[in-house]
Amino acid sequence: MTAELKVGVAGLGTVGSALLRILIDRADDLAAATGRPLRVTAVSARNRSRDRGVDLSQVTWHDDPLALARDPDVDVVVELIGGAEGAARDTVTAALEGGKSVVTANKALLAAHGVELARLAEQSGAALNFEAAVAGGIPVVKALREALPGNALHGIFGILNGTCNYILTRMEEDKLGFAECLKEAQVLGYAEADPTFDIGGFDTAHKLAILTSLAFGTQVDADAVYVEGIASITPLDLQMADELGYRIKLLGVARRTPEGIEQRVHPTMVLKSSALAQVMGVTNAVAITGSAVGELTFVGPGAGGNATASSVVSDLADIARGTAVAPFGRHTERLATAERAPMQTHQGGYYIRMTALDRPGAAASIATRMAEEEISLESIIQRHPRARKGGEDVLAKDSSVPVVLITHATSEAAVRRALDKVIADGHIEGVPQLIRIETE
Amino acid sequence: MTAELKVGVAGLGTVGSALLRILIDRADDLAAATGRPLRVTAVSARNRSRDRGVDLSQVTWHDDPLALARDPDVDVVVELIGGAEGAARDTVTAALEGGKSVVTANKALLAAHGVELARLAEQSGAALNFEAAVAGGIPVVKALREALPGNALHGIFGILNGTCNYILTRMEEDKLGFAECLKEAQVLGYAEADPTFDIGGFDTAHKLAILTSLAFGTQVDADAVYVEGIASITPLDLQMADELGYRIKLLGVARRTPEGIEQRVHPTMVLKSSALAQVMGVTNAVAITGSAVGELTFVGPGAGGNATASSVVSDLADIARGTAVAPFGRHTERLATAERAPMQTHQGGYYIRMTALDRPGAAASIATRMAEEEISLESIIQRHPRARKGGEDVLAKDSSVPVVLITHATSEAAVRRALDKVIADGHIEGVPQLIRIETE
Repeated sequence: MTAELKVGVAGLGTVGSALLRILIDRADDLAAATGRPLRVTAVSARNRSRDRGVDLSQVTWHDDPLALARDPDVDVVVELIGGAEGAARDTVTAALEGGKSVVTANKALLAAHGVELARLAEQSGAALNFEAAVAGGIPVVKALREALPGNALHGIFGILNGTCNYILTRMEEDKLGFAECLKEAQVLGYAEADPTFDIGGFDTAHKLAILTSLAFGTQVDADAVYVEGIASITPLDLQMADELGYRIKLLGVARRTPEGIEQRVHPTMVLKSSALAQVMGVTNAVAITGSAVGELTFVGPGAGGNATASSVVSDLADIARGTAVAPFGRHTERLATAERAPMQTHQGGYYIRMTALDRPGAAASIATRMAEEEISLESIIQRHPRARKGGEDVLAKDSSVPVVLITHATSEAAVRRALDKVIADGHIEGVPQLIRIETE
Repeated sequence: MTAELKVGVAGLGTVGSALLRILIDRADDLAAATGRPLRVTAVSARNRSRDRGVDLSQVTWHDDPLALARDPDVDVVVELIGGAEGAARDTVTAALEGGKSVVTANKALLAAHGVELARLAEQSGAALNFEAAVAGGIPVVKALREALPGNALHGIFGILNGTCNYILTRMEEDKLGFAECLKEAQVLGYAEADPTFDIGGFDTAHKLAILTSLAFGTQVDADAVYVEGIASITPLDLQMADELGYRIKLLGVARRTPEGIEQRVHPTMVLKSSALAQVMGVTNAVAITGSAVGELTFVGPGAGGNATASSVVSDLADIARGTAVAPFGRHTERLATAERAPMQTHQGGYYIRMTALDRPGAAASIATRMAEEEISLESIIQRHPRARKGGEDVLAKDSSVPVVLITHATSEAAVRRALDKVIADGHIEGVPQLIRIETE
């Protein structure tokens, strides 16, 4: 048996504590699986007194994670501090510069500085592993990085944020409003006090940027991700989706298109029969389409201390075994600069919900403006409010009526132009709701 | 860039031909992903003249795969011959004995001789990779072997045979009989002329035995798998399942129980809301439950030349990178001898369908015999044939009536004893249909 692998853990919150417990409880099995013992030799956290359920008396405690990164008694640094800058970035940088391998769960850091850090790792021959940064316990980073080299990948479709999926699931199943479900998610600990990062789609965007790089062999390009959150989704949208055979999910989508690589995060109508539509609550899922394999779907826990720690342990085990894979699947010199497909060129079906004023001309305006942009309609649904239940958002005025259009494939630009004209015609109230449809 | 990896391919059927095409078409990407070129230097197949869509003029042709295994111009042997004995076994053995790494898609070989071959690989430091042997293009071998060392695994639940899942899907969706759907599957090329190996559950059993070893760190023990096929499933069973909120799938299940490791293959009622219930047609799926990660589900193509070749390429890429993982996840000396849990100790819910003679005493016999074995019933459904449609199998006699019981968790032994007594009481016709229920 080879020498032990000395692990330093920076950040002892929920994931860090779970990690320490697993490394102790499963020490024998880990040694059997990797051929060498894994031992925690150093930790760093702000609060020394908190009980983490493990004996840390034999472990060096560093108040400064940078000192942990430079501790000669540490072979590999696990960074669980979080944040794209500051202590997390400094710690990871110092570790890699010192030739130590790094395991991190930090999607913000990787989305912002992934390629730069990968370059540092390459220079010293260290590993930079980040299975836990995307989709919690699902081994999708490993799958993309190692298991699909026989495929030209076409697309990635991910439910990558448990908070959003929980809220959408609750809204759908119990016909509740967004604000109510968000509050409930906060009470249950599924959403932060400031939930913007999750519900605004930004967390999903960071994760998507990482998956996109792995899938397409391109540099991480988080700035290129088009982002919409879920705050505008109403119970009426969910009801209409249901009637039309869809569910609404916040998806991160990356696709290779003739215009370049499309990266987008937005509420999406997915067919009820699709694998992603079955994913409820805080669960995450990633569907991958490739030239040889067709479609693969991975479903599992997107968060939680133990599930995330499971991925951190997987990364540590690979380092213990000496597995050498480039952080983003290929040498940074071979990561292409992605051609960005602008959102305006996106092609797909659209769900458009408008509140039309109940007077002559509204339907003609909508139909004409769509026709002018050569948008063909699969369905038009107009119902008088009296005929419906729920949907408190459109019952404000008796003189307005919801109109829902489902378009055949068209471009984002055409839809935007048509809606601008419909708004200018003055027959609708407020801003139209636009939800993209994925049928793949 | 390191020296090229020289690949020899034994067996050029659908998978072998797809593999050759991928290795040519994606040569640049494979070199980028692994750091070295992969080149096919030798092949072996019976038919030299068949057009495989690739230029083989620069490749050494061996009529005997053993000669390929011994060719000094081959670093790694891909075995796509098939079968547990004969040429496949000899080729793999010779390659490993000669210190060459092996990639194989051969589940029968691994189920029969996996540990012995792993030992040979260990002796020479060669790799023995077999992603394609289980669940086609789904990277579940890699996930179990490398990605979950932080987990004590509890169970594996797999839809591992596309033929069976296709037949069950067709029976359910179109209310067709088993024989008709089998014939259709044969016409479409989803089932062999002699379909016993698939529909009898034996193919699933081989795959399950491999997954069990990977999941529990035990020696492959294919003889311990309890096997039932799908030939006895009737449209009435599917209809009853539907009414009760289930679908019927042929599952391979491995579980750690207090009595040992349970390995079983049989038609299974799964909740319609479960991930496995959504898996239709020839698609495969594997659900894994673990102590840290909770539940993971992988869904994808279980067969097909390209999807299977995708897994073979993944294995080759790992060898090109120098990744060293024990074939069954740990050194063979550390693979435990599994304690076998006999099927009689299996605990779970049961669906029991009987054809009761329509006369006094039948219901009393059934209810009494169940009570004697302390089997508590969740539902009893008895309907006069006139009230139903379909189900031609139970309309034979006007004087008989189908009775369906759903039990709460009980033991296989108790159910078997109760049914033996019910049969002895003489109130039912034929053999009761027994389908196990999984609600996890």
